[in-house]
Amino acid sequence: MPLQFNEYYNGRTGLAIGLKKLLFSKQTDYQLVEVYETDTWGNLMAIDGMVMLSEMDEFVYHEMLSHVGVFTHPSPERVLIIGGGDGGTAREVMKHASVKQVDMVEIDKTVVDASKEFLPEVGDFQNPKLTVIHEDGIAYIKKVKDPYDLIIIDGSDPVGPAEGLFEKDFYHQCYQALNSDGVLTTQTESPWVESYFPSIRKVYKALDELFDHSGMYLCYIPLYPGGMWSMMCASKGEGPMESSVLKRAEEGINTLNDLKYYNPEIHQAAFALPDFVKEIIK
Amino acid sequence: MPLQFNEYYNGRTGLAIGLKKLLFSKQTDYQLVEVYETDTWGNLMAIDGMVMLSEMDEFVYHEMLSHVGVFTHPSPERVLIIGGGDGGTAREVMKHASVKQVDMVEIDKTVVDASKEFLPEVGDFQNPKLTVIHEDGIAYIKKVKDPYDLIIIDGSDPVGPAEGLFEKDFYHQCYQALNSDGVLTTQTESPWVESYFPSIRKVYKALDELFDHSGMYLCYIPLYPGGMWSMMCASKGEGPMESSVLKRAEEGINTLNDLKYYNPEIHQAAFALPDFVKEIIK
Repeated sequence: MPLQFNEYYNGRTGLAIGLKKLLFSKQTDYQLVEVYETDTWGNLMAIDGMVMLSEMDEFVYHEMLSHVGVFTHPSPERVLIIGGGDGGTAREVMKHASVKQVDMVEIDKTVVDASKEFLPEVGDFQNPKLTVIHEDGIAYIKKVKDPYDLIIIDGSDPVGPAEGLFEKDFYHQCYQALNSDGVLTTQTESPWVESYFPSIRKVYKALDELFDHSGMYLCYIPLYPGGMWSMMCASKGEGPMESSVLKRAEEGINTLNDLKYYNPEIHQAAFALPDFVKEIIK
Repeated sequence: MPLQFNEYYNGRTGLAIGLKKLLFSKQTDYQLVEVYETDTWGNLMAIDGMVMLSEMDEFVYHEMLSHVGVFTHPSPERVLIIGGGDGGTAREVMKHASVKQVDMVEIDKTVVDASKEFLPEVGDFQNPKLTVIHEDGIAYIKKVKDPYDLIIIDGSDPVGPAEGLFEKDFYHQCYQALNSDGVLTTQTESPWVESYFPSIRKVYKALDELFDHSGMYLCYIPLYPGGMWSMMCASKGEGPMESSVLKRAEEGINTLNDLKYYNPEIHQAAFALPDFVKEIIK
């Protein structure tokens, strides 16, 4: 086992994470799933050599991908998560009293099994609101009969099995699988390394064309390339920055336990973009 | 020369930056100053093994340390920069028409010389508003007779010669060297690695006790540990988040050329803190 996990976004530039122990490694039908014990961030899951999450920083990604979307909808009951096999996004969504049902469509059962065993604090798999479905999200979305209030796309990077999750066709299918006031959130990579993974502009344009409201927002994730991560929220109903949404977040925030990142001020602030990021999606 | 520059904030965890060429290396009376050509971020200066700036990401640090402070003051004319030898902070401050004089007190002449030669786009050393003084900032501040409107503390990490820049005594001297509506900004390290450099809470407390208004704000810096950097703005007059300050930023922003990060929405958004950061300074 190497002493260090390295993820490079260009040349030999990227992350260095000290390792204590290899806990799990399996080449599945879809990807290489690994879990390491690190020297700083607790246990860490990597897929095809890219950091997915660590025990100590996962709260940022999961809180920001979930709560921005949930509060943008007036009262979401039915939620679909595409990907998200570690369970963290579902855990956050299920904290909301309005949410009655969460369907999580994770293509790779190994991700769920390894998370349950080595990242046990991340998921809330015993929660009766949750149904886990092992299927390709792109196939699943085409068959949805009973539409959802909120769809969260929690896939890995746009290489390998998650590549199709960054295509306009897929977002169009999601649009059709949403109710008339439906909301969608998705992770869209790092603006700092946009030149190496040029997917942000494409996704922004697709969502902007399909939905009544859409916006990019940012959060600080120390174990993702560059430490800045972008997400997008698109809505058929209220926009994610409308005052009614921010008011709902203000009123609802105290019903949510164990938040470490998201709060209503962060919800609003996350949509303020540095000039160079605006330039990328212009 | 190694193929990679590594800065670890704990164990073997931190940054990895691919190197093409060592351009400069000198052990001065104060510190080891190095400049490398990197594979991704242009030329990069390191001091005592810690990244100070790269050509391609320096705009974030310099814009955020400068413009938040300048706009918080009604009309700053006299500005003192402690440290800042690369010239980037002075460059941003001097973009403001109100600013007539910038005194930059950089202890180490080698930092200025190496920046002029290897990071020529960063500084604006020919600008007649600028006076460079090679002296210890801690000694200089005690002798200030003619007070300043704005003091910017642009030192390196709280180890080595910059250590005293994180002490309450020093901030007290700064307070006394400011006019009655004076403003101070300072860099205060990464909340993500607070447990390794526990200086944030101390600085926050000191500024909060000394000044009428103070606040922490954040920005995304890809080559600093964790990718999240904190700064603080303290003021004897208007607070950095008051509506009069935000209005001034709205009105003044179009007079500033070549901004890539700072804008009035970012000014406001940067003061929104994730829950875990609030916890650190509570």
